[in-house]
Amino acid sequence: MVRIAVDGMGGDYAPQMVVEGAALASTTLDHEIILVGREEQIKSELRKHKVVGGRISVRHAPDVVEMHESPVAAIKRKKDSSINVCIDLLKQGQADAVVTAGNTGAAVAAATLNLGLLAGIKRPGIAITVPTLQGISLAIDVGANIDPAPEHLYQYAVMADVYARAILNKRRPTVGLLNIGEEESKGTDLMREAYKLLRDSELNFIGNIEGRDFLSGKCDCIVCDGFVGNVMLKFCESIVETITKLLRKKIVLNPVFKVGAALCKPALEQIRCETSYEEAGGAPLLGVNGTVLISHGGSSARAIANAVAAAVSSIERGVNAKIVKEISGTQQHELKKT
Amino acid sequence: MVRIAVDGMGGDYAPQMVVEGAALASTTLDHEIILVGREEQIKSELRKHKVVGGRISVRHAPDVVEMHESPVAAIKRKKDSSINVCIDLLKQGQADAVVTAGNTGAAVAAATLNLGLLAGIKRPGIAITVPTLQGISLAIDVGANIDPAPEHLYQYAVMADVYARAILNKRRPTVGLLNIGEEESKGTDLMREAYKLLRDSELNFIGNIEGRDFLSGKCDCIVCDGFVGNVMLKFCESIVETITKLLRKKIVLNPVFKVGAALCKPALEQIRCETSYEEAGGAPLLGVNGTVLISHGGSSARAIANAVAAAVSSIERGVNAKIVKEISGTQQHELKKT
Repeated sequence: MVRIAVDGMGGDYAPQMVVEGAALASTTLDHEIILVGREEQIKSELRKHKVVGGRISVRHAPDVVEMHESPVAAIKRKKDSSINVCIDLLKQGQADAVVTAGNTGAAVAAATLNLGLLAGIKRPGIAITVPTLQGISLAIDVGANIDPAPEHLYQYAVMADVYARAILNKRRPTVGLLNIGEEESKGTDLMREAYKLLRDSELNFIGNIEGRDFLSGKCDCIVCDGFVGNVMLKFCESIVETITKLLRKKIVLNPVFKVGAALCKPALEQIRCETSYEEAGGAPLLGVNGTVLISHGGSSARAIANAVAAAVSSIERGVNAKIVKEISGTQQHELKKT
Repeated sequence: MVRIAVDGMGGDYAPQMVVEGAALASTTLDHEIILVGREEQIKSELRKHKVVGGRISVRHAPDVVEMHESPVAAIKRKKDSSINVCIDLLKQGQADAVVTAGNTGAAVAAATLNLGLLAGIKRPGIAITVPTLQGISLAIDVGANIDPAPEHLYQYAVMADVYARAILNKRRPTVGLLNIGEEESKGTDLMREAYKLLRDSELNFIGNIEGRDFLSGKCDCIVCDGFVGNVMLKFCESIVETITKLLRKKIVLNPVFKVGAALCKPALEQIRCETSYEEAGGAPLLGVNGTVLISHGGSSARAIANAVAAAVSSIERGVNAKIVKEISGTQQHELKKT
């Protein structure tokens, strides 16, 4: 049985949506959920839902890191915030994984400062699953490290490769570097150095990819600068809404379009669901010494439940142990070469 | 009468598409077009089209910079390439503007090295028009300068402000900085420094914008790091195709969807056209001492004709003189403050 600490106060619709998500997860997963946050509020929400007996407990945490707060300052000042208590439970072995839809920077800071990094890892990275024309890809980093060194990007590739094999069931994941041209010589010094490290590695590196390849499924693992990845992530999240708004503007102008749109609506709805980040539920914060899943601030109950499920898979498939093994292997490989 | 030198050999479908575009422009614009490239090939293409008498001439240039060539090396080695000859015509006063759909890096390098920069400008930037939910915005830089300093970003904002007023008819354009969060403290050192310069300027700066705001029309001028801008540009170009492919996959599964899609097709086609980069035709290379428009490598004849029209507007509305005036004004403003 896996024990998941869920940040009950994290997210735009917390605690309501988070508690509903935990309740939903309890009906489908045979694991233990610890809801962390203001006890009264959480218990009052819990009473609204059907919870499978004994699978959800509540741990009191009086403080909340708000979405707009400066992450490092907030987690230092608010020792008893829900995110800090979640991470503490993990550190003390009272939980196996953490799921939070709260302030992303605070989750990264709390995890990095309190749990530390996996042996050999220099920086943590946030990975997201990207729905592409060819299935699911993984992009890393999307904002944990906005000023990376070449070695950080290389380690992100190693971690993404492990995750894609363990969780996305890819046999030998292809890795691409998000750059401004396909040639090895393209891009900033950071990109050229990272290219060399990836090219000389044992990863299945296919070279640079460009912005147009982000959703095409050209590779299984997209390695990117965290600044660029964050801009892309937020852009991706807005696309379906933008296209829908554009379509609506057209459709109201013409009754024929209205009929056509009504007939097509289920197809559009299917696409919306399949491309929704809510399906994946949580973005793994890879590289920290513990399993931490970060969900979108606007997460629905379904997104929270999916994040809990993803956390369980990460634990059951031993993602972190595999990352440590790979990183130690690549370091020995490097030593042999020198 | 404005004289436009058009790179007859630049682009994926050159010279055919470029010549067709020039012919199209000649029927609607009362200006002179000089097609630059391999004379025989271009004349042979020209014979296929109806050209309004005397408006198109041909200037021979035997060499071609290919799309995959390393820009600076190619323009230095191929002195008689069509792009070099175009820029020479501009420099010698035999043309007023250049339009090219060829190798972007080569166009930037040829223009920067041969024409130099406008007085006070530190780096050139490529601006593109972005179709948003609120109309047209301008994004700068999308790839001329992938390692910018804060001052470069500031100057891009000044140039975009001038262009948006002169060409996009915006009265007091709003300016946003593409960053990873709205707060002033967000992002890299580059972003924080650029934020300060923009905040303290006389521009209508609205602060940081995020990836989700790129197509929302939150601001008229989007200032970005050229690396990020290039990734976003190429991503934008791929979106409509990606969504279309996703829709097709769904639609073939169900006859009702097929009927609905057939009814809606004109609406989708309208969106495709309105969001197509071809409508804008060309991206101005701002900051060089001359008017240079860079078109997409895959430009259609219509895109080329639109780029010629945009070049004419830039000349007629004195964009470069206005940029020089603004930059000199901001420099005096800076001096006064110190």
